[in-house]
Amino acid sequence: MKTSDFEVERLGPCSIEPPVRRSTYQSDDRGILYNINQPLDTSRREEPVWLERAGAREHIYFEPGQVRAAIVTCGGLCPGLNDVIRGLTMVLWHRYGVRHIHGIQYGYAGMVPGTAFEPVGLTPEGVEDIHKDGGTILKSSRGPQDPDAMVTFLESLGINILFTIGGDGTQRGALEINRAARRRNIELAVVGVPKTIDNDISFTDRTFGFTTAVDRSREPIVGAHMEAKGVFNGVGLVKLMGRQSGFVAAHAALASSDVNLVLVPEIPFTIDKVIEFLKNRFERKTHAVIVVAEGAGIELLPTEGKDASGNVKFGDIGLYLRDIIKQRLAEEGIPVSIKYIDPSYIIRSAPANSLDSTFCFLLAQYAVHAAMAGRTGMVIALLNGQFVHVPIEKAVSSRKRIDPKGSFWQSVLDNTGQPESMT
Amino acid sequence: MKTSDFEVERLGPCSIEPPVRRSTYQSDDRGILYNINQPLDTSRREEPVWLERAGAREHIYFEPGQVRAAIVTCGGLCPGLNDVIRGLTMVLWHRYGVRHIHGIQYGYAGMVPGTAFEPVGLTPEGVEDIHKDGGTILKSSRGPQDPDAMVTFLESLGINILFTIGGDGTQRGALEINRAARRRNIELAVVGVPKTIDNDISFTDRTFGFTTAVDRSREPIVGAHMEAKGVFNGVGLVKLMGRQSGFVAAHAALASSDVNLVLVPEIPFTIDKVIEFLKNRFERKTHAVIVVAEGAGIELLPTEGKDASGNVKFGDIGLYLRDIIKQRLAEEGIPVSIKYIDPSYIIRSAPANSLDSTFCFLLAQYAVHAAMAGRTGMVIALLNGQFVHVPIEKAVSSRKRIDPKGSFWQSVLDNTGQPESMT
Amino acid sequence: MKTSDFEVERLGPCSIEPPVRRSTYQSDDRGILYNINQPLDTSRREEPVWLERAGAREHIYFEPGQVRAAIVTCGGLCPGLNDVIRGLTMVLWHRYGVRHIHGIQYGYAGMVPGTAFEPVGLTPEGVEDIHKDGGTILKSSRGPQDPDAMVTFLESLGINILFTIGGDGTQRGALEINRAARRRNIELAVVGVPKTIDNDISFTDRTFGFTTAVDRSREPIVGAHMEAKGVFNGVGLVKLMGRQSGFVAAHAALASSDVNLVLVPEIPFTIDKVIEFLKNRFERKTHAVIVVAEGAGIELLPTEGKDASGNVKFGDIGLYLRDIIKQRLAEEGIPVSIKYIDPSYIIRSAPANSLDSTFCFLLAQYAVHAAMAGRTGMVIALLNGQFVHVPIEKAVSSRKRIDPKGSFWQSVLDNTGQPESMT
Amino acid sequence: MKTSDFEVERLGPCSIEPPVRRSTYQSDDRGILYNINQPLDTSRREEPVWLERAGAREHIYFEPGQVRAAIVTCGGLCPGLNDVIRGLTMVLWHRYGVRHIHGIQYGYAGMVPGTAFEPVGLTPEGVEDIHKDGGTILKSSRGPQDPDAMVTFLESLGINILFTIGGDGTQRGALEINRAARRRNIELAVVGVPKTIDNDISFTDRTFGFTTAVDRSREPIVGAHMEAKGVFNGVGLVKLMGRQSGFVAAHAALASSDVNLVLVPEIPFTIDKVIEFLKNRFERKTHAVIVVAEGAGIELLPTEGKDASGNVKFGDIGLYLRDIIKQRLAEEGIPVSIKYIDPSYIIRSAPANSLDSTFCFLLAQYAVHAAMAGRTGMVIALLNGQFVHVPIEKAVSSRKRIDPKGSFWQSVLDNTGQPESMT
Repeated sequence: MKTSDFEVERLGPCSIEPPVRRSTYQSDDRGILYNINQPLDTSRREEPVWLERAGAREHIYFEPGQVRAAIVTCGGLCPGLNDVIRGLTMVLWHRYGVRHIHGIQYGYAGMVPGTAFEPVGLTPEGVEDIHKDGGTILKSSRGPQDPDAMVTFLESLGINILFTIGGDGTQRGALEINRAARRRNIELAVVGVPKTIDNDISFTDRTFGFTTAVDRSREPIVGAHMEAKGVFNGVGLVKLMGRQSGFVAAHAALASSDVNLVLVPEIPFTIDKVIEFLKNRFERKTHAVIVVAEGAGIELLPTEGKDASGNVKFGDIGLYLRDIIKQRLAEEGIPVSIKYIDPSYIIRSAPANSLDSTFCFLLAQYAVHAAMAGRTGMVIALLNGQFVHVPIEKAVSSRKRIDPKGSFWQSVLDNTGQPESMT
Repeated sequence: MKTSDFEVERLGPCSIEPPVRRSTYQSDDRGILYNINQPLDTSRREEPVWLERAGAREHIYFEPGQVRAAIVTCGGLCPGLNDVIRGLTMVLWHRYGVRHIHGIQYGYAGMVPGTAFEPVGLTPEGVEDIHKDGGTILKSSRGPQDPDAMVTFLESLGINILFTIGGDGTQRGALEINRAARRRNIELAVVGVPKTIDNDISFTDRTFGFTTAVDRSREPIVGAHMEAKGVFNGVGLVKLMGRQSGFVAAHAALASSDVNLVLVPEIPFTIDKVIEFLKNRFERKTHAVIVVAEGAGIELLPTEGKDASGNVKFGDIGLYLRDIIKQRLAEEGIPVSIKYIDPSYIIRSAPANSLDSTFCFLLAQYAVHAAMAGRTGMVIALLNGQFVHVPIEKAVSSRKRIDPKGSFWQSVLDNTGQPESMT
Repeated sequence: MKTSDFEVERLGPCSIEPPVRRSTYQSDDRGILYNINQPLDTSRREEPVWLERAGAREHIYFEPGQVRAAIVTCGGLCPGLNDVIRGLTMVLWHRYGVRHIHGIQYGYAGMVPGTAFEPVGLTPEGVEDIHKDGGTILKSSRGPQDPDAMVTFLESLGINILFTIGGDGTQRGALEINRAARRRNIELAVVGVPKTIDNDISFTDRTFGFTTAVDRSREPIVGAHMEAKGVFNGVGLVKLMGRQSGFVAAHAALASSDVNLVLVPEIPFTIDKVIEFLKNRFERKTHAVIVVAEGAGIELLPTEGKDASGNVKFGDIGLYLRDIIKQRLAEEGIPVSIKYIDPSYIIRSAPANSLDSTFCFLLAQYAVHAAMAGRTGMVIALLNGQFVHVPIEKAVSSRKRIDPKGSFWQSVLDNTGQPESMT
Repeated sequence: MKTSDFEVERLGPCSIEPPVRRSTYQSDDRGILYNINQPLDTSRREEPVWLERAGAREHIYFEPGQVRAAIVTCGGLCPGLNDVIRGLTMVLWHRYGVRHIHGIQYGYAGMVPGTAFEPVGLTPEGVEDIHKDGGTILKSSRGPQDPDAMVTFLESLGINILFTIGGDGTQRGALEINRAARRRNIELAVVGVPKTIDNDISFTDRTFGFTTAVDRSREPIVGAHMEAKGVFNGVGLVKLMGRQSGFVAAHAALASSDVNLVLVPEIPFTIDKVIEFLKNRFERKTHAVIVVAEGAGIELLPTEGKDASGNVKFGDIGLYLRDIIKQRLAEEGIPVSIKYIDPSYIIRSAPANSLDSTFCFLLAQYAVHAAMAGRTGMVIALLNGQFVHVPIEKAVSSRKRIDPKGSFWQSVLDNTGQPESMT
């Protein structure tokens, strides 16, 4: 990995004065170090990797009066979508004087020629209060569209800045759009705001909606705890988000301190071990709380095709666990009463908590600064506590996952008291 | 119906001075009118029915120093259980000086000779903060036990007052216990606090936990609304409590004003009509919110045996509706995206809201006053805004249900805009 | 008191068919009994008093196409104001086809000729989501205006139905408006929805916003409890709403069960007794929680003129208690750390909880039914659990207050453990 | 600044095997880079500064069977105190087998010979659920005590590890205790967990309780917004925490996006400018929301002595602003209605949100690892997203404050729209 891998594409030099003048700007000649955890022995250190810092530039690339911006939200709901839409609109309008802001409806499905869903005009008045609701005022859809068709559509509206709010698949699509525009020599800045409630995008400390999801997981876990404690040999089982990474489940367990076993996609487990765990627990206590990430233990399940975004569809590990625990303990003559809670849509549809609201505003603001300065093919990320520009290619190159040997997972083990190995 | 039907059984005359003296008491010579909605034309009026008013009596039946009280909680969780346990303990202890208060564990299962679950001693210190948690510190179980065995168990501990906190089945059990004690000439006051999150006990305005359940239904409904609005032809479907009565679903719909269709056990519906409703709606709007009570439309479903309490087990109307709507609209080539939320255990396990906390304290207090005054075979109820004594036989004689021709259901129709007939 | 005192004024006979037909209506020949708590000895019973039941009538007075309705909100904020505005608009529009609905701005100040604040048009789209916010979209003001001027203003807009949402003073103003219209022979139905967060209007079980206020008092009381317990001889002091009636304070204390002393306007107290109470408490415990209603102990304070609505302004009993406790205990050499919390505006500005949202919708709906049926000079009330029509004159004739000898206050004493007399 | 300035004191070499063996440990030969934002031009870069990484070591200093640990909480309440107490106890007990854990009561006041407040024993059972409540089960007090007396007290109990949870003053006290112990050759590890709801400790990204405080500021700000919008020329004024740094106020403003003016200690302002701001605003809108940090504009106020911890006591800027705005606008004949909200104690006494609960567990865990490895005179900090050891001397050397020229404050300006200069 080298600093040059993280160089962000630019449409051209910045020579235009932005309309609002401030006393300070971010210059291009500073960077943020990526690899900050190093051996003290200098001879053993990795090559330092520097990322471009986000922020307002003193000179920008686009003439604000000629900007036609578009915003699109894709994939499932995530707390903070409206905060990002609001922030983008407010900063474009008030800080840069942009007056043409199009809200694409229904994700990429609303961004192809002949779509039934016209873009809507976005103004400060229209977006003023939208962050108080969950969901997305622009609506969403799943799955890819033809990049060339999307560029043609954007060209027909004269769009020269596109903000893509979405996950992995969405940002891959954004990358294709960016490449198509370059290929066709169309001036288009494509700047993404990564969205994954699972918090599994690389080169970013966390993604928006994640802390809200962890906050909102508290109530179902408390409920599971109370249900479990209310009967003899009660098990409260909660399924949380996390298809390939168990950050929501693990953080929720840590935050609650009521969880006795957390199962995540990164750590394999067997049903035998889960049953053994419960039997041991029931010798000491009359209840247990289990949190399982939706992607945990998928190797135990048959797959069920793919969804519209092309993600493999899993069987439901929550229902599977509920039934197999009931069956296996019944076979052994051990009474158990298991209550299963799946709060997924309640969490995904929630409005952002304060931390995420602030985070979304900052992400949106830095996305606008980047786009106005002609950056493209990039996403905004928070890395080591600093906002930076990351090329989309790097951001989608691999998923962030819990390291079973890392100190975070060790903390989870210390908190739940569960065995280090579940196989 | 006559006033004499509501006469409450007494163990004997009250001649003992309670230890805490107050400036006012409730005398036995007043009643609360049951049938208050009458024709103005006096000739057409029903016979007035009077119920015994709850409250502290100036003289009581039991010598406080000789009281050994027991408290039992049965059936599923309901917000406020701990509030009632706390209130009973506090008022017995501080107002009447009772020092022997047994908490039966695991419901009626913990009230038979040879049970593995010993009763626990309850004191003000032990219960001080329990109302801040959901669940029940006494744990619970489902299903009946032999009344004679339970009386034998109580007799062995010297219990002379039993408080039964539970639903229909529990209070029927309490009635059997009361009869067995009378038969065997054992001095035992049995006073119930009716518990039904569905709010379907007769002769009571509402039961504890009900308003908390309605409050806690707001978040899932808002989530369903946001999920529905976030996609094209989105349907948010929420299943709420209500096996035979749809009060939770209907009140939650009224409170939210986001619901377009509410389906309750009292009002029959066909799948054809639901599909027609959605098709009409999708001609005007791109989303719909449906709330269904768990007991609605059971005639559409196969039954699946009985649960431990002897209640018939339904198939899951929520899952059924989700699948059939998807399938039927797909057959007609109408796109739909349906998100299903089942918040049941999150709601049942929640702590009581303020209104329910107050209500539980008052119920508990009046239950203690009644028992100390030697009443038995009765439950405490709130009727026409007044606390009264109701014989168990009357309370369990029939279920309270929504009247499809009554003004409450008319208000629901006005709020949701749904058709008066769904068949 | 006689049934005839509660006869509601009518503009004329009802002969028009409402546009939406339903299977059931409320007939005029039934009533709701007011005095339901009576001696069982029939010879000692009070004369029964019957009130007119609220509800949709089969025939109405106004031709819907000719209705021009106006809605005004007056006085301080109260949870549920927007719910009432929304409910009135929805039911007028959808149930009766009324298309001219004026929202008066800034209370009675916006209802006089020459006002700077034009009424706004209200439609279902405009009010759809307003109940999710606290406050009032129509804004408010305090204080009376000339009734004749207001009638002239309404006449100039052709208004024939006026809904007044406000407290005592507002409804007195509504009564004046009604009288002026009658005097001037102007066809105007005036129907009020009583608003008092203090819950102190007569002939109504509770007013909207009250249970939300009690709910929202929980967090400050818990905070006071924690602050008090966190230091040596800590006192948490919370001031709650209640100028002349202590219902909010007393209910909040009951709901929390953390309160050791609640001071309300109905029960006199001396500072000496408060100090004595704390000294006794500090001999057993190291903390205390006190809740004081804003109107408690005003005789201990200098008054400070009147506010714009003509209510006498009190000095602040909360600040007074905080300072005098600190000073008096310091004089006696007793350490104390007192934390004072005044959550008033946080509570008043909150959105309605579910119970209040439902209640507001029902109040609004019944107000529309009443007005369309030509009732005037009345308010909608919930009495003994039933919605009824109450003449404004009766509703404002006296305030509802806690009865120091009643069972509710006895319950509060049992809950807090405070002495029956504080003088 | 050099790496050697951040070297953490050690009681001695680590040679003992901890009782719980794990597959991974943190070695001492890695560091975390402090200064990660650098010029890309290598010739202009600062000297890199490396901090010691927190984490479990493979070998520890203390023999677990001989450890007697003590925990003390000082100063005002802060969300998360109980989480830290719980985490310390759990990790000491379960991970290291420590069985002597003393909870010092009432802060440093309970840590001197002859104190009236005996330490309490802490066990997993005793602390299991304490994190669900705000406050501190150990109680607290303000102000310093003699370091030598405290060391004598600890020595008398055989304490060899002391965890100090508190702010600036507390950690200065901890430093004195550490020095006194060294001087007297007493084996004592002193490890601090910095507590400042204001988030103004240096060398740490954030402190526990901060995000909860920002979350809990949302409701009062929404209330202020609603109150302001509910009347003509309404001003909602909210005072938030922040004596010398305005992070809570600024983050709360960003999170809410309803705030029009935020006043913090770091940015001077004049009353003239505030009045001018309001007059301008009232030309365009009829309401305004102002958030003021408690330490903002203190130069405008008379001081009022010092509190028990030795902090200078300010007059109340909130009350001052409320009164001066009212007065000044009245003088100019501009109507205004101002509502003032001071939610301080409600926020400070709240339980931690999920993010803070997790954070507190991790801080506690790393504090235990550090102490068991013989580190002393240090605090645990989160720096650039990594947990590190920071010598107390560095942590208390200066306060973290908002940089008026930094990008964070620029974001606040973009969000509120307020002028860059208020003087």
